[in-house]
Amino acid sequence: MANQNEMTKYLQAFIEGIISSGVTQAVISPGSRSTPLALLLHRQEKIKTYVEVDERSAAFFALGLSKASDKPVVLLCTSGTAGANYYPAICEARASHIPLLVLTTDRPHELRQVGAPQAMDQFHLFQSHVKLFVEMAIPEGTKEMLDYAYWQGMRSTDAACQLPKGPVHLNFPLREPLLPDLSQSLATEQRTEIIAGKQLLSKDQMLHCVNAWQGKKGVLVVGGSHTPEEAVSFIELASALNWPIISDPLANIQSCGKDSPLIMSCADLFIQEVKMEQHPEVIVRFGMLPISKNTMFWLQSLKESETTIYFVDETGEWQDQLKQAQLSIQAEEQAFIQSIKENTTIKTPNSWRDQWIEWQKIAEQQLQEVTELNQLTETSASILVHKKMTTGGQLFVSNSNAIRFLDRFSTTGNSQYHLFGNRGINGIDGIVSTALGVCAIKPERQNMLLIGDLAMYHDMNGLLLAKSYDLPLTIVLLNNNGGGIFSFLSQRQLEKEDFEPIFGTPIHLDFSLVADLYGAEYTKAETLDELDELLEKTKTQPKFQIIEIVGEREENVDLYEQVIEGLKEKLR
Amino acid sequence: MANQNEMTKYLQAFIEGIISSGVTQAVISPGSRSTPLALLLHRQEKIKTYVEVDERSAAFFALGLSKASDKPVVLLCTSGTAGANYYPAICEARASHIPLLVLTTDRPHELRQVGAPQAMDQFHLFQSHVKLFVEMAIPEGTKEMLDYAYWQGMRSTDAACQLPKGPVHLNFPLREPLLPDLSQSLATEQRTEIIAGKQLLSKDQMLHCVNAWQGKKGVLVVGGSHTPEEAVSFIELASALNWPIISDPLANIQSCGKDSPLIMSCADLFIQEVKMEQHPEVIVRFGMLPISKNTMFWLQSLKESETTIYFVDETGEWQDQLKQAQLSIQAEEQAFIQSIKENTTIKTPNSWRDQWIEWQKIAEQQLQEVTELNQLTETSASILVHKKMTTGGQLFVSNSNAIRFLDRFSTTGNSQYHLFGNRGINGIDGIVSTALGVCAIKPERQNMLLIGDLAMYHDMNGLLLAKSYDLPLTIVLLNNNGGGIFSFLSQRQLEKEDFEPIFGTPIHLDFSLVADLYGAEYTKAETLDELDELLEKTKTQPKFQIIEIVGEREENVDLYEQVIEGLKEKLR
Repeated sequence: MANQNEMTKYLQAFIEGIISSGVTQAVISPGSRSTPLALLLHRQEKIKTYVEVDERSAAFFALGLSKASDKPVVLLCTSGTAGANYYPAICEARASHIPLLVLTTDRPHELRQVGAPQAMDQFHLFQSHVKLFVEMAIPEGTKEMLDYAYWQGMRSTDAACQLPKGPVHLNFPLREPLLPDLSQSLATEQRTEIIAGKQLLSKDQMLHCVNAWQGKKGVLVVGGSHTPEEAVSFIELASALNWPIISDPLANIQSCGKDSPLIMSCADLFIQEVKMEQHPEVIVRFGMLPISKNTMFWLQSLKESETTIYFVDETGEWQDQLKQAQLSIQAEEQAFIQSIKENTTIKTPNSWRDQWIEWQKIAEQQLQEVTELNQLTETSASILVHKKMTTGGQLFVSNSNAIRFLDRFSTTGNSQYHLFGNRGINGIDGIVSTALGVCAIKPERQNMLLIGDLAMYHDMNGLLLAKSYDLPLTIVLLNNNGGGIFSFLSQRQLEKEDFEPIFGTPIHLDFSLVADLYGAEYTKAETLDELDELLEKTKTQPKFQIIEIVGEREENVDLYEQVIEGLKEKLR
Repeated sequence: MANQNEMTKYLQAFIEGIISSGVTQAVISPGSRSTPLALLLHRQEKIKTYVEVDERSAAFFALGLSKASDKPVVLLCTSGTAGANYYPAICEARASHIPLLVLTTDRPHELRQVGAPQAMDQFHLFQSHVKLFVEMAIPEGTKEMLDYAYWQGMRSTDAACQLPKGPVHLNFPLREPLLPDLSQSLATEQRTEIIAGKQLLSKDQMLHCVNAWQGKKGVLVVGGSHTPEEAVSFIELASALNWPIISDPLANIQSCGKDSPLIMSCADLFIQEVKMEQHPEVIVRFGMLPISKNTMFWLQSLKESETTIYFVDETGEWQDQLKQAQLSIQAEEQAFIQSIKENTTIKTPNSWRDQWIEWQKIAEQQLQEVTELNQLTETSASILVHKKMTTGGQLFVSNSNAIRFLDRFSTTGNSQYHLFGNRGINGIDGIVSTALGVCAIKPERQNMLLIGDLAMYHDMNGLLLAKSYDLPLTIVLLNNNGGGIFSFLSQRQLEKEDFEPIFGTPIHLDFSLVADLYGAEYTKAETLDELDELLEKTKTQPKFQIIEIVGEREENVDLYEQVIEGLKEKLR
């Protein structure tokens, strides 16, 4: 059995390994069994540590840190149910390809399955939702075991970072005494470097695509999360081909600061309403489907005999719900786009794209003419948040209605800001904490969260992170007192006595008290102008605040239907 | 593919099955995929449904309902991370043997692993922490499939209820349209009854125990959770043998209303301090170890050559951390106790028990003499809560310090109340919701929760259940602004700059705002008399309230050490 000194060396070697592989941040939840790792991480100068008591919020916070920094982030907790609280964030990280290094601590073998307190089976705790599970050895101080600990730290972090990125889980059995020897040197050095290649097509494979695409009537359909910089390259590809581009809000194409007429930001509104006289010959899809159901129905309606569908599948995970791709292209996206752009010499004639540009223009015009959009509603508030974002800003958008408002109604702007969301599994859990993780990476910037009341309630504990770390997040709270999304779905047909308790689920919370509790400023915006003024200030005076917009669930549905009706009229 | 009508019949048959097996309560979290099951449960007269948006709190609430009603309880949620939020409560249910029927809903096969929204791998989602996982068939309306659905409902509920009880998980793939046909008859009938035997010893096996025990110098050591009624039978067994009895607070021996001198309620205080001139010849242990570490160290110190250890293992799970039992008795506890009592004819001479009674008396005397216990501290508040409980009342005690205060300092009283806790994995998560689940079973009674500030924060969302269902729980909040338990552990040796951020973890929350937010009355008790008065009112006027006691972390340690020092003196 290792003594205190040997345990310390062993865990320190592990930490040296994870630092070698790029870890710079850790989120710790307090506990006893995790004591030595917690203290060594806390004392480690190369790692910035955060502490959060609620492991569920801690894990989503780590998810946000990793999203915004594009680096692997460590999670550490004690034995027992602590780790089980990580599960929602881990599922989301797996689906949205975020590298987390999840460290749980455990009783040693002799105290397992014997009823020892705070002990439970932690093997494969996160089932198929981690890329790798490692049961670490009991700490020992031999050279071989120190090399092993270093190696596991390095290679498991690397496993999290290989494509598709994702969470990995290491379980550490630790014996008492649990206090490490803090008198040891905790200096680390970079012992290993990694040179990793990319999945590239051969020249022939790439030219096959170019020849199949250039000059054709095509549409780019971009799903998944992308940085504004990546978004620019998608737009450049669209320009090179002279094709319209339909995208998910998180692809950041509407928010990357480029105002190309090829961007079909209103596709959700018009794509099912227009009469398409010419079918596309080619669809090139990148990653998951965009959020718009109308876009999905349109893609589903295309005939295999008329339209060839290409699916660029960077992860190799075949995440294509439509199962209609005739060619699956497995290559790293950005390098692939670059080489396609460079080799495309023939632009598709303008006539193809012009009809799309016309539809987009009519939809934009319709949005301007719906005067109800000039009154304060959840919908207009969402549009305004998008418009008030400045270059370099970060906006996190919640699931359910919030992201749909952005998808339907936001048009391109001049600012290049970064839109984030949790669109792996699309849960309403952990949104506040993830947004705060994003904020923590660039707290000096404009940082906003657009969220509904149920998601806000679900992760209210996350607000403690804002208080603890002085994170200047502006939360724009769309409060319709319940589950607004169901008013858009078939459930809305139900009788009120079935609908309200099961789907409407009003929670009647006074969020000004929530603001008081966590030390946020609070304002209820009563008019669109007032909201405008409040948002204007976020550009120069970032602070932790909640701006509440009180809405009605049905109002959003009515507004959407009004827009669609008017658009139909215009398109006739 | 089943139409709406067939899907409804299939799910209704399942619900008939679970009702046949004893389900009367369900906790639903809103979502779209779960719509048909949610509506059918909501419409079902034989099932009382609760709705809670946060699935983590919902699951702990169900745990509490099941604990207090001793019946299987249904959990229902939508697809995706929703189910992952159940995980902590499921781990706790597995370890503490609580029957939950966990229903997750899922995309059908054709929408799995293809990137469909809100879809993830839900097979064996809860790994080894459920007793059974069932992937249900896609709904169909044939007689065979309706019988199948009924049968799965019945037998999976029964699986949850067989010893050792625990959670089971059923995953339902459901296709659109998701609205059920509510015009169908939703009446159910009891189609199957169950007669289940018990694990009983033969006459010879039982007499072997009687002969080995009666007349010997023995000690009963009772761990695990028991009802006050079960607790009485342990005390009767102790009386029959004339042995002292040491127990966990949750065994309810201190709170079952019997004032036997054999109850060693202060064992934690004296057992390591007394000079034992006579070693026990026999120890009979029931279930897990009691919480007291001193009791554990004492048991560990016993010599195999002098003391024979018997371990009554109702679950057959060998949950004996000490691994020292020479005879493991696998039998249903209460029936076993009954037959031992009936066949015991020889009492151990009083000289053996009298020394124990003397130690207990000295410890009680010491508690009375420590005048600091007459001032308001977290410790004295905990003792007072125990003393103010009335017959029929329910007290839920949180993990970490709260249950330890009760274990160390509470003596037997005249009221028979029921003490509950989550001592499967001993997490500080889900405490508020579990306590509210217990309260919901008998809301007309005196219902109390004794909890620290970190546990209160961890499950603050649970308070919404009190607001939604008007549950009159009195929360006695021991607020030492952080992790008080660590001041009792080795971590206390650390420097402040290591201790405070990682273990102390102050959260600086104003809990009067929490009370406002959730509609609870709030009082800060400033003196022990004031607390006494407030608690007195809970006997006749149950209401949802938070009574806050502001404490100091070190104060508890000092007090404990003072008691021990004085006791040492007295025993010399």
